[in-house]
Amino acid sequence: MRNIKQEIIAKAKNDLEGIETALRENLNPHLDLIRETAGHILFSGGKRLRPLLMLLSARLCGYTGNEDKNFSAIFEYLHAASLLHDDIVDGAALRRGKPVAHSIWGSTAAVLVGDFLLARSLSLAVKARNMKVIEVISEITEQMSRGELHQLVRKGDTDLSEAEYMEIIRCKTAVLISAACRVGSLIAGAGEPEEAALAEYGLNMGIAFQMADDLLDYTADSKTLGKEVGADLKEGKLTLPVIYSLKAADPETRVRMTEIIKNKNFSVQSFETLVNILKSHGGIKYTEQKAAEHISGAKAALSIFDKSKTKEILLHIADYALKRKM
Amino acid sequence: MRNIKQEIIAKAKNDLEGIETALRENLNPHLDLIRETAGHILFSGGKRLRPLLMLLSARLCGYTGNEDKNFSAIFEYLHAASLLHDDIVDGAALRRGKPVAHSIWGSTAAVLVGDFLLARSLSLAVKARNMKVIEVISEITEQMSRGELHQLVRKGDTDLSEAEYMEIIRCKTAVLISAACRVGSLIAGAGEPEEAALAEYGLNMGIAFQMADDLLDYTADSKTLGKEVGADLKEGKLTLPVIYSLKAADPETRVRMTEIIKNKNFSVQSFETLVNILKSHGGIKYTEQKAAEHISGAKAALSIFDKSKTKEILLHIADYALKRKM
Repeated sequence: MRNIKQEIIAKAKNDLEGIETALRENLNPHLDLIRETAGHILFSGGKRLRPLLMLLSARLCGYTGNEDKNFSAIFEYLHAASLLHDDIVDGAALRRGKPVAHSIWGSTAAVLVGDFLLARSLSLAVKARNMKVIEVISEITEQMSRGELHQLVRKGDTDLSEAEYMEIIRCKTAVLISAACRVGSLIAGAGEPEEAALAEYGLNMGIAFQMADDLLDYTADSKTLGKEVGADLKEGKLTLPVIYSLKAADPETRVRMTEIIKNKNFSVQSFETLVNILKSHGGIKYTEQKAAEHISGAKAALSIFDKSKTKEILLHIADYALKRKM
Repeated sequence: MRNIKQEIIAKAKNDLEGIETALRENLNPHLDLIRETAGHILFSGGKRLRPLLMLLSARLCGYTGNEDKNFSAIFEYLHAASLLHDDIVDGAALRRGKPVAHSIWGSTAAVLVGDFLLARSLSLAVKARNMKVIEVISEITEQMSRGELHQLVRKGDTDLSEAEYMEIIRCKTAVLISAACRVGSLIAGAGEPEEAALAEYGLNMGIAFQMADDLLDYTADSKTLGKEVGADLKEGKLTLPVIYSLKAADPETRVRMTEIIKNKNFSVQSFETLVNILKSHGGIKYTEQKAAEHISGAKAALSIFDKSKTKEILLHIADYALKRKM
């Protein structure tokens, strides 16, 4: 059986090719430094999830124009801008198996090229000549920075609550994916029910997607992951598997977990101990369940749309978000 | 005789107070880290040049509403965002006599709070419900990042031409000041001639303002300047006084200048030698002349407006830009 990722790629082949072209054609780098730094983050094996969702959402709402691919670049540029700035914040060394941009070109270039990509996405959004599109972009830009800052100030705190975690991942990940779907409906001139349904689909998808990503840090090996295993913890990022298990654990286990978490140079052995605690105390399972609930929510939100090939791909992407291994 | 700065402050007292209130009320920091980091850069003795120019431009075009102060915050937030990111890039230690934000809260917070301020300015711009305002903001955001990147890639290059210098200061400084004036005319619903005149006034003002700033690095003492003297050169930033003098100098002097410029740990004595060369080879005088030409251009652009108190303050600000000592 062909795996779900390959199936999506096969079905969305034309769209994905169009997205690649649009990403190259709308960059307007002017300077070699922009071409190289932005190129490094933009063309290093990203899944193009956000632009693809925008294209499919627009099509689901009956869009037949030919500007959709250009607008879809907005969401990959915003995503890349946020990755460039986050990698500085996180102090991470690898992304998608490659050294992060700031370790090659310096954090100064990473900051400024991130700013440039944000500005390019804004310039593209203006071209839609649709005030609601601009409003959505401005809203999510603010929420994304709030989410990142929220995460930053709570770094390393073992008392981070599930509610706070949910708020952080909503802001830093889900609102962008939701906006991609919503803007798809807006450029198609869809009505409010369609806009709300796609926003809801995207928000749930985004939450599940981030939960699945956070799970990978405890379930994947570093080769599949393209970055160091245990990286979240080393950066002081507490995610749902840990938050849940800390709460579920007896005091003694909690002390042991806290010791491992607080010591950022934990050994491979300590990390394995922690992963076993996450498994035995239900943190892995609980996170999987929560992610599955959000995927169900995402799919349910699409019920107002008639059956179509486009809808089918959107449902497939929801399944992929849950089951992805990298 | 009261100095020109005090005179402007006295005449614009109500506006300046309104700007302070708007800057506090529109920040919506939510997190202490945002309140502190953004507050450090926003409320540390900035001149409020950009918001004031927006208010005066709107009034000059007949604006009588009461949303102008809120919109004026857009330009101070954009300016502060750019300062936060630039200070990381520059590696500077002091701004306005205080330690730069990233040395207190870390560059990670400075990056993210800069992003937040950019997002806030965008959210405020959206409130104008005017597509042209959004277009101007998106255009300048892109140009500002291009200007900073251009400066970054040419850091330390002694063959930077006057034309390139002009392009850099246009992008990194003048377009924002020009946009503040232009948006003032737009929210007042002014016609294209007024918009073009104020854009021209602001662009010339911005260029002269940056030239005057670049001169201060060679003519002011560090206490007046609020930062280290010779900081531009230590950061590898070649400005017009140096560019002109390098070209005007005989080969032997050029070698000596280049030695001082390339050695970023130059002594106070070497710096004084360089300043003397800039004086004797006309770099200081040439830059003063060029700045004065742009101030004349700025004033001339206002000729389409009738005489008024508001116009008088705008003309005064142009004079101040040229003569400021800090």
